[in-house]
Amino acid sequence: MDGPPTARRARLEGVQRARVVIVGAGFAGLSCAQKLAGKRVSVLLVDANNYHLFTPLLYQVASSLLNPSDIARSVRAIFRRSPNVRFRQGRVVAIDVGARTVRTADGGAILYDYLVLASGSTTNFYGMADVEERAFGLKDLPEALELRNHILGCLEVAARSSPTEAEPWLTFLLVGGGPTGVEYAGALSELIDGVLPDEYPDLADRPIRIVLVEALDRVLPTFPEDLSRDAQAELRRRGVEVVTGVRVAAFAEDAVRLSDGSVIRSRTLVWAAGVRPSDLAGALGSVRSRSGRIEVDGFLRVRGLRDVFAIGDVASVLEGGQEVPMLSAPAMQEGRAVARNVLRAVRGQPGRAFRYRDRGSMATIGRNAAVAELGPVHLTGFAGWATWLVVHLYYIIGFRNRLAVLLGWAWNYVQSDRPVRIIARARGREDQPAAVPEGRS
Amino acid sequence: MDGPPTARRARLEGVQRARVVIVGAGFAGLSCAQKLAGKRVSVLLVDANNYHLFTPLLYQVASSLLNPSDIARSVRAIFRRSPNVRFRQGRVVAIDVGARTVRTADGGAILYDYLVLASGSTTNFYGMADVEERAFGLKDLPEALELRNHILGCLEVAARSSPTEAEPWLTFLLVGGGPTGVEYAGALSELIDGVLPDEYPDLADRPIRIVLVEALDRVLPTFPEDLSRDAQAELRRRGVEVVTGVRVAAFAEDAVRLSDGSVIRSRTLVWAAGVRPSDLAGALGSVRSRSGRIEVDGFLRVRGLRDVFAIGDVASVLEGGQEVPMLSAPAMQEGRAVARNVLRAVRGQPGRAFRYRDRGSMATIGRNAAVAELGPVHLTGFAGWATWLVVHLYYIIGFRNRLAVLLGWAWNYVQSDRPVRIIARARGREDQPAAVPEGRS
Repeated sequence: MDGPPTARRARLEGVQRARVVIVGAGFAGLSCAQKLAGKRVSVLLVDANNYHLFTPLLYQVASSLLNPSDIARSVRAIFRRSPNVRFRQGRVVAIDVGARTVRTADGGAILYDYLVLASGSTTNFYGMADVEERAFGLKDLPEALELRNHILGCLEVAARSSPTEAEPWLTFLLVGGGPTGVEYAGALSELIDGVLPDEYPDLADRPIRIVLVEALDRVLPTFPEDLSRDAQAELRRRGVEVVTGVRVAAFAEDAVRLSDGSVIRSRTLVWAAGVRPSDLAGALGSVRSRSGRIEVDGFLRVRGLRDVFAIGDVASVLEGGQEVPMLSAPAMQEGRAVARNVLRAVRGQPGRAFRYRDRGSMATIGRNAAVAELGPVHLTGFAGWATWLVVHLYYIIGFRNRLAVLLGWAWNYVQSDRPVRIIARARGREDQPAAVPEGRS
Repeated sequence: MDGPPTARRARLEGVQRARVVIVGAGFAGLSCAQKLAGKRVSVLLVDANNYHLFTPLLYQVASSLLNPSDIARSVRAIFRRSPNVRFRQGRVVAIDVGARTVRTADGGAILYDYLVLASGSTTNFYGMADVEERAFGLKDLPEALELRNHILGCLEVAARSSPTEAEPWLTFLLVGGGPTGVEYAGALSELIDGVLPDEYPDLADRPIRIVLVEALDRVLPTFPEDLSRDAQAELRRRGVEVVTGVRVAAFAEDAVRLSDGSVIRSRTLVWAAGVRPSDLAGALGSVRSRSGRIEVDGFLRVRGLRDVFAIGDVASVLEGGQEVPMLSAPAMQEGRAVARNVLRAVRGQPGRAFRYRDRGSMATIGRNAAVAELGPVHLTGFAGWATWLVVHLYYIIGFRNRLAVLLGWAWNYVQSDRPVRIIARARGREDQPAAVPEGRS
């Protein structure tokens, strides 16, 4: 107790402050931490990665438009001016509710007064081992980079192969007609149509196929039917083959078999057919919904537990009898609601029930084409795209706080350029596990 | 012969044109191809990677200032307006001079009339297996990304460790006092001093060591002594420990033993102590210099071979009895000289002998500090740095042709920001070799 006055005061306050541990720095966890920044609680944000990822633009990394650093930001950088929010890189593997302790894969133990579980979701392969082994997910940054490298690599292999050999390298199968599948199909067709004719003279006469497969009877099945129709027509106009009412049955090295018995020769299966809650959802041993999400009460507290909240994709939040979808908007609303309730609990006030406000949803097919559902207003074409662009550019600007990114991105988008068209990955060092902190990949 | 007139003409011309195969898209190979673009020869550029890399700024990727796409550009994009220059991604593994054929790892065979070998160099570990296994090179993009991820990962591990445990994670040993080692030492100290105090409160009281080890008696040994002294003083002012006259003897998991018997606890050994010609230098079976480079005559032709040239790091080019250094400037001069001689040979004219013009060299230690030797003029401090900056910004602008990059980079540099501070790598897919074109990593 002989430190300078400010340090001593901080230490004394630290002892008195409630410890809030947030697991996951996605939209839910980050919003919660941001709402608690500067407040009289001590926050520790834990994530396996050292960055927050703007997943709605992940497909633009996989299509060579954006750099990883355009959509990923160091968590520490976000909270550099918030001394009450600290970060720890680590993969949470267990939760001991009795001891109020979270355990990480590196052997660490973290005590909490309030625990906020926001561990998100991961790609759901529905138990199809052959697909899981060979397909590309589009849910995290390593997957997006791997997919980008793979697509560019396919074009290189095709460029030096005979037409027959090239066919599976030039057929890209996308499974799942939700926003991710639709947006990636559109971005991929732009990459191929806008940039490659000049650069791959060897492929000039070769058919390049993009096939989007959806098990239900229309793409964007969660959107109103008129927007689905519009998106589907727009995709077809851009050369994307849309196949509905069909599932993937099997995936071998260079061929995909569909449920209608047809076989498509393809080296590339992009799996955007669904996500499931992270494995941590099962670590609590609490009640879970049919979709595997943790059941919570009206205050977003895990059923049967005190001072443990679950938010975002990992939580089963009901609104009008329906589970709130796994999207960024509800995740952020839930994160802020839990932050408010933690602060109320610290002050001895009762919590307030959470209500989800659906402000609409949108999906973009490409330049000048998107669909947006804003309550009763349905936008398509350029109007939808302009709306989409404003919302996302606004985010990027706020996120990076740099005019240069906006200029660079807008410039590339207008010019149809794809600046990130390099096949780059970090050298793997599987031989050296000791030097590789968990959660790096 | 019933195609449209233009296609027929192109086909006829194609038959008549000499086939120039250039192996390697580094400074030497790229300059040669650029000089041949638009000329009446058919050029095929072959490289294991699909990009040209601006290696002089590679250390800025490893220090989180630049994105890979800032210093790497798709070879196909560079030649998109040059139909007589084509690209093929492939790793050349053998050369059959009798059959005038180059063979790639994927089984391809490429015929040539003129062959230009520009396969560059790779990190030289001088046979130290323990160092090669555990040290980080700084010669290609995967190495730079891996090093960036590793450095950021070390800080994360240290932030959750006790002071004793943290020591080897917070000690960064750089071996080799040439430009790469000096520039990375400076960049690393800027990363740590300028950005991290705000973001790693847990590391506030912990000593972070950057140790630069050089076997000779001074850093930048190829520069004049006064510039070496200045660089060394500047490094020390920035907190870098400079140790000269000492070599690395051994590297275990968390300790480095030096030739003077001292042991430094460190998890990070960055090896910038030398490069050697690429393995392809031996594939020809021709005479090689003591440094392993291919001996060439005054016209840069491989000794004893017809129509085969060697340029850049892989070639032993003599000027005043000395081997020209392994740098970008001579590589580019050699590339252009060979292009001119190939064109003269095609026209039946005799070749012209190559003369290397040394226009000086420079190395930057950080913001406002660099050393530059421009003939009799020696610049240091801000003057040296301004010179360095102009030369490199000029390159970046020409390279990317985008104002946004300049703005973004200048902005970050002025703000001491490091935008690329994320630990990201593509998911490894060692399970799926068939889908991974060679030369991806």
